[in-house]
Amino acid sequence: MNPKISQFLNANQLTTPCLIVDIDQIEQNYQQLHHAIPNADIYYAVKANPALSILNKLISLNSFFDAASWEEIQSCLNAGAKPSQISFGNTIKKVSAIQAAYQANIELYAFDTIEELHKLAKHAPATKVYCRLAVDNIGADWPLSGKFGTTVEHAIELLLEAKKIGLCPYGVSFHVGSQQTNPHAYVNAIEKSALVFNALADHDILLEMINLGGGFPIHYHKDVPEINQFATTIQNSLTQCFGDDMPRIILEPGRYLVGNAGVVSTEIIQSSQRGKMNGPRWIYLDIGRFGGLAETEGEAIRYPIITMYDGSTTGPVILAGPSCDGVDVLYQETSYHLPLQLTAGDRIALLNTGAYVSTYCSTCFNGFTPLEEHYI
Amino acid sequence: MNPKISQFLNANQLTTPCLIVDIDQIEQNYQQLHHAIPNADIYYAVKANPALSILNKLISLNSFFDAASWEEIQSCLNAGAKPSQISFGNTIKKVSAIQAAYQANIELYAFDTIEELHKLAKHAPATKVYCRLAVDNIGADWPLSGKFGTTVEHAIELLLEAKKIGLCPYGVSFHVGSQQTNPHAYVNAIEKSALVFNALADHDILLEMINLGGGFPIHYHKDVPEINQFATTIQNSLTQCFGDDMPRIILEPGRYLVGNAGVVSTEIIQSSQRGKMNGPRWIYLDIGRFGGLAETEGEAIRYPIITMYDGSTTGPVILAGPSCDGVDVLYQETSYHLPLQLTAGDRIALLNTGAYVSTYCSTCFNGFTPLEEHYI
Repeated sequence: MNPKISQFLNANQLTTPCLIVDIDQIEQNYQQLHHAIPNADIYYAVKANPALSILNKLISLNSFFDAASWEEIQSCLNAGAKPSQISFGNTIKKVSAIQAAYQANIELYAFDTIEELHKLAKHAPATKVYCRLAVDNIGADWPLSGKFGTTVEHAIELLLEAKKIGLCPYGVSFHVGSQQTNPHAYVNAIEKSALVFNALADHDILLEMINLGGGFPIHYHKDVPEINQFATTIQNSLTQCFGDDMPRIILEPGRYLVGNAGVVSTEIIQSSQRGKMNGPRWIYLDIGRFGGLAETEGEAIRYPIITMYDGSTTGPVILAGPSCDGVDVLYQETSYHLPLQLTAGDRIALLNTGAYVSTYCSTCFNGFTPLEEHYI
Repeated sequence: MNPKISQFLNANQLTTPCLIVDIDQIEQNYQQLHHAIPNADIYYAVKANPALSILNKLISLNSFFDAASWEEIQSCLNAGAKPSQISFGNTIKKVSAIQAAYQANIELYAFDTIEELHKLAKHAPATKVYCRLAVDNIGADWPLSGKFGTTVEHAIELLLEAKKIGLCPYGVSFHVGSQQTNPHAYVNAIEKSALVFNALADHDILLEMINLGGGFPIHYHKDVPEINQFATTIQNSLTQCFGDDMPRIILEPGRYLVGNAGVVSTEIIQSSQRGKMNGPRWIYLDIGRFGGLAETEGEAIRYPIITMYDGSTTGPVILAGPSCDGVDVLYQETSYHLPLQLTAGDRIALLNTGAYVSTYCSTCFNGFTPLEEHYI
C-alpha cells in the first residue's frame, strides 16, 4: 500500500467505510503522463473524483479539465480554473447547462448529433466544437461504446454543418473505453480521426485538435502495459497519420490520475461459511456496490485487497456489500483468496479506489451514509 | 397517472429530475394489504423509501417497520415509532449497530449464520431472533436469493443454539424475491418454515412467528396477479401447514406500499436518430441508472412512461441516462415506443417510481445533484 496512506490509516482510527486519497500521488501520476506524452494537454476527467483538493492540486500543475456537467464546470471555476482550461465534454447537454457554460465563457464543447449541434449554435454561438467518433472498445474492462459517438461519414457532415451555422469546427474526440489494456485501440481511432481531418481539409476547413479521451489503465488484479507503451504507440500512429502537421492533442485521463492514489478502508461485518452450504466463505463488507464500488458491476473492476493477516493461510471467499440487495455482491465469480483468520470487526483495505468511488456512492441506500473522504 | 400527482405537476414548474410521492396512495395501499391479509402485521421495508412523510403516515396507521440498518432504526424512532414496532431485518449487522439498537430497546433481530447469532447473544442478550431461510426466487423480477438465508437443517440447528445461548428463538423469515409475480413462491417457503417449526417443537421450543418478507408485485410493464390472489394462496398454505395453531404473521412490503405512489418527472436532454446509424432513436433523460433508476440494471424493472403527446404516432426508442457512463442505458433490449414528436426540453413521467429511487441515487456522479423529492 502507498506508505503515506498506510501511515495515515495507522495514525487515525477512522470511521469506516472511508476513502483516503494521496494528493502527492496524483501529482506524480500527472507528471508521469505529461512526460510520456509531452505534446498533449491533459484535461482531467473531473467525474473520476471532483474533490476540491484534487482540483486545486491540478490547477497548480496547469492541468485542463474535462467536465461532464454544468455542476462540474462550476466546481472547476470555484477551484480557480480559468474558463479556457475547461472542456464541456458530455455530448448531451441541457439547454440550460449550455447557456450557463456559455455565460461563464466556456469555449470548448463536445457533440455527436445534429440536434446537439443546433443547440450549441443557438446557445453557445461561435464556440469551438468537436465531434465524438464511435470507436472500437475491445480490450477495455469498462467499455464506453454504444451510448455515444458517431460514424466518420456523419462526423464529416456534422463538422461541415457546424461551420455553416457559425460554430468553429475544432476537431474530433473518441473514447477507447475505460481501463483499456490494448495500446492499439488508439491506433484505429487515430486513423479514423485522420479520415475526418482529411475530408474537412478538402473543404478548406482545417481541424486543429484530436481528443484521445481517457482509458489508460492502472494496475488492479493483473498487470497492464506501462504508460510508455501507450505513448509510443500513440505517437507513432499520430506521426504516421499527420506527419509534420500535428494537431493539438488532448487527453482526458480520470482513472489514470487518481485511481492508484486512493484506498478504501472497510470493516468486515460478517465472515461466515454460511451453515451447511458448500462453497467459499462469505465476507460481508461495510461498503458495496451502492456505497461507491459501482464498477464491481459484472465484476469488471477488481480491486486488490490488503489485510492485516497477509502471509497467513488463505481460502476462497465471496465478497459482498452491507445492503439487503441481492445484487450487492462484489466478487463471486472472480477468485479472491483471503486469510482464514479474518473475522467480523477486522478492517481490510481496497487498493486503487481513488477513481469513481466517492461519486457513484448512493445518498442513503439501506440508510447507510456516504463514505467519508480524506485527502492527504 | 395518479390525478393528485398530475395536478401537482401541472400546478408547479418543478426542477427536474424530481420524484413526487402521493402519501394518500400509500395509505390506500396499506389498507388494501391489511384487508387482504388481516392476520398479518405489516412491517414497512424502510429501505424502499425512508422519507419522513411516509414514516409519519405509516405510524399514524399503526404500521410496524423493517429496518436494514441502525440509521433506518433511528429514522423510525425519530419519526415517533416505538422500539417494539421495529424489526432489525438485515441478517448482517455491525456490532456497533447491534449495540445501538439494543440500547434503543429494539427487541427483534434477523440472522442466518452462527457468527451473527453469537454477536446477538453478546450484544443484544435475551432478545427475540428469527432465522432467515434461503428459498426459491423463481418468478421474481429482482431476485434476492443467494446472498442471504440458510437451509432448513441449519436453521433448526441455529435456533436450538439461540435458545442455548440465552436468546429467544422467535421464528423464521424468508424472501421470495422482489416483484415476485408467482403466488406459489410463498407456498414452498411456508412449507419450509413449517418444517422448522415442527423440528423445534420436537425440542419443546415453540416458535411464534413467520416473516413472509416482501415481494408483492406492482404493475409496471405487464399485468401482475392481484394482491387477493397472493392472500388466498398464502392463507391456504398457512392453514394447511399450521391448522388452528397459526403463528404470528409478519409481512415486509416495500415496493407494494410506495411503488405506485411515486412519479418521476424527467426532462429529455436529447432525442436523436444518431446520424447515419440504423436502429431506434436514442432519447437521453436527465435521470438514469445513477440518478436513482438503479433497478433498470439488466432492464429488470420497466417503468411505464407517460408523455404529453400520448396518442400520436410513436416509434421505437432506446432510453439512456445523462451521464458519460456507457452502462447508463435504461432500456435498449426492452421494446419501448414513444411519440415521434418528443424533443429536447420536453418532460416525460416515469410511473410507479415511488420505491427504491430516492435512496439508490448517487451523491454526485457526473456532478449531477440528487433528484428533488416532493411528498404531497
